[in-house]
Amino acid sequence: MKTFNIAIVGLGNIGLEVYKNLLHNKNNIFNKTGFRLNIYKVSSKNFSKKRGNIKIPKSLWEKNALNLCADKNVDIIVELVGGADGIAKKVVFSALKNKKHVVTANKALIAKHGDQLSILAEKNSVNLLFEASVGGGIPIIQSIKQGLIANQIKQIYGILNGTTNFILTEMEKTNSSFNEILKIAQQKGFAESNPSADIDGHDVAAKISILSSICFGSKIINKNFLVEGIRNIEIEDILFAKKLNFKIKLLAIAEKINNKIKQRVHPCLIPTYIDIANINGVTNAIVVDGSPIGRTVYEGPGAGKGPTSSSIISDIASIMVGNDDYSFGFSPKSKKNYSLFDFSNHESKYYLRFLVSDRPGVLSTITSCLAKNKISVESLVQNPNNSYSNIVIVTHASKESSIKNAISILAKNKKIFKKIVMIRVRNESNL
Amino acid sequence: MKTFNIAIVGLGNIGLEVYKNLLHNKNNIFNKTGFRLNIYKVSSKNFSKKRGNIKIPKSLWEKNALNLCADKNVDIIVELVGGADGIAKKVVFSALKNKKHVVTANKALIAKHGDQLSILAEKNSVNLLFEASVGGGIPIIQSIKQGLIANQIKQIYGILNGTTNFILTEMEKTNSSFNEILKIAQQKGFAESNPSADIDGHDVAAKISILSSICFGSKIINKNFLVEGIRNIEIEDILFAKKLNFKIKLLAIAEKINNKIKQRVHPCLIPTYIDIANINGVTNAIVVDGSPIGRTVYEGPGAGKGPTSSSIISDIASIMVGNDDYSFGFSPKSKKNYSLFDFSNHESKYYLRFLVSDRPGVLSTITSCLAKNKISVESLVQNPNNSYSNIVIVTHASKESSIKNAISILAKNKKIFKKIVMIRVRNESNL
Repeated sequence: MKTFNIAIVGLGNIGLEVYKNLLHNKNNIFNKTGFRLNIYKVSSKNFSKKRGNIKIPKSLWEKNALNLCADKNVDIIVELVGGADGIAKKVVFSALKNKKHVVTANKALIAKHGDQLSILAEKNSVNLLFEASVGGGIPIIQSIKQGLIANQIKQIYGILNGTTNFILTEMEKTNSSFNEILKIAQQKGFAESNPSADIDGHDVAAKISILSSICFGSKIINKNFLVEGIRNIEIEDILFAKKLNFKIKLLAIAEKINNKIKQRVHPCLIPTYIDIANINGVTNAIVVDGSPIGRTVYEGPGAGKGPTSSSIISDIASIMVGNDDYSFGFSPKSKKNYSLFDFSNHESKYYLRFLVSDRPGVLSTITSCLAKNKISVESLVQNPNNSYSNIVIVTHASKESSIKNAISILAKNKKIFKKIVMIRVRNESNL
Repeated sequence: MKTFNIAIVGLGNIGLEVYKNLLHNKNNIFNKTGFRLNIYKVSSKNFSKKRGNIKIPKSLWEKNALNLCADKNVDIIVELVGGADGIAKKVVFSALKNKKHVVTANKALIAKHGDQLSILAEKNSVNLLFEASVGGGIPIIQSIKQGLIANQIKQIYGILNGTTNFILTEMEKTNSSFNEILKIAQQKGFAESNPSADIDGHDVAAKISILSSICFGSKIINKNFLVEGIRNIEIEDILFAKKLNFKIKLLAIAEKINNKIKQRVHPCLIPTYIDIANINGVTNAIVVDGSPIGRTVYEGPGAGKGPTSSSIISDIASIMVGNDDYSFGFSPKSKKNYSLFDFSNHESKYYLRFLVSDRPGVLSTITSCLAKNKISVESLVQNPNNSYSNIVIVTHASKESSIKNAISILAKNKKIFKKIVMIRVRNESNL
């Protein structure tokens, strides 16, 4: 009976948690897989760094991770350094070339080099698995690749970032501004001191690039698609949305339409009666629409060392039981080079908010500009303040290019203050 | 490269759908697994039965399914006959003994003979998979066995029957009686002409028996646990629950408490703010609580030929890629013989409804009887009609045995009409 020798590269929060869980769960994993595992080596820049109450025997330490990739005793390399390039990239490429299975949580690396890496894994008859890169503990990649293998996926969408969902939830709950809640999120450890990757949507962009490739058998599309974060969402927008029976959520969405991939990350208005609208706090939720299965939803903690280590160990166990599936669920050879849907052709309803003076006068300017751009108004709410008022319009289904055009014209009007807020409304037929 | 020869036993709705999907998806499955499959044979009692527009070549037909189990060319037997015993049992036992992998949707068979069958599968080094037996298309078994392999599962619960969830949803939506909606469900094909298996909870009981064994590594507990259906839920109860901010759902629940399995199926009041309370119609949803992952939720279509065939083909593909996992996620040897939690020690809040005459007089009788049984009242709602009135009480956390005792005493009171309604309230800390 084979014992699997595991090398953990990177001993941050997640690496330590994986170390601890593998150690404590050795017998469980044996009972559940029929195979033994052994933590053969760990690697980190600095061995003597304090690591709370976790003591790692010095004999396990290897300073140079690349030595582990070439070590004939190693079966599985667990890469937890992070980053699209640098040492993480070197380790993963080297491990695969040396016929080591690789498990990683590194979404940046996979979104950037996943196609190339999966070809290398295939060539060397080893696995490259990255369940922890998307959706934290939720077994979403495995569910799509294996549970839904019989399906043609039509679309996938969801809430893939806990930080931004926490911020949007708390803004509504406490009637606070984005900046106030961002500070709290940083204090609670839900947001980084440099929060850009989360709040500007880049984290989610990498995740939907990965999921989209897995769902549609497409080569990874990791650039030139629409990525908007939540930095410009104001409490007013959340409250107006609520009045109109919507919630604002940062959604990642990927669809296959006529052999093009329509892939994007942006805030959306979703009707409150939809399950996804009620996913609060740091929870993630992903909807997959396929045929013949229909709509399935996967919900759970989207980050944190416990959930992330759960996914990493699931990948390790999958390798141990001989689950020889493709990294992206399709043989690299069969992956298609689909092009990106031209988003200026996107159609949906739009939420627009204008901060104006001289309400009666400017309203007719706005509506006539919208009409000239073939945008018709579904509903209109006004909220007068002392010195200015908000005009909120939800349009009927309109073209992105028309909306952009109308906004650029109206932005020049001196009676409209600040930036005009535009948030897309998710088409109900897609929910 | 190996081609897998598949034999489908049973050509009902599901069998035909699997046949059709395998045929249409051969290339997809090759692209996704790297292996070819071949529908080698099909078996049904009667070959010439009309099967819509699906034409199966007569050369594929084998009347006696047991011949397929002994056929050296067959790799995977897909059993879709159904039933805990009879031909289904014979086929699955014979297939495993003959070293054929088995995929089945048969929850009755697995709940009854699963322990024995999984030992046989292990002994013969083949897989026995039954994703389609629980939760229709939702990849719940695979998610627990593999996605959550690193976790100690604390509890699993959910809505596992589409028929009863449809009935409860529609009763509320249309303010109708159980019997009225049952008829509609039967017309729509959501309920059988003999609906007992669904509405009395037996279908769900088999499913939770299977899930419980998978979650806790326990031998299957398939009897002597509490199974109550929804036959006695009246529209009044749904409306009173609504007034109290609850929904009534038929839940299957399994927990591991001090090495005992607390497993049950019964209607529950759930606060409306909980996601599971808002799962409507024929949709199923399952919550799994584990450590270190936390709470994950899996939602999707719980029945129907499309979703069921999706799960069956997922199992077939899992075998094709060499995923050699245990049937119940634990090696048969390691499965424990946990005993069942004594449900008379169960504690929760209870919803009680009394139909009474002479309200003031009987109310004091009720409350004093409750007090004598150490049951304290959390809230009380009355709804007077012309000739009788409903007294609805939600208790504080009380013991099942005390409630049962109080009900048996009060049932003898002549001012209390009909059967006293008792529905358990799900503990919020478990939601």
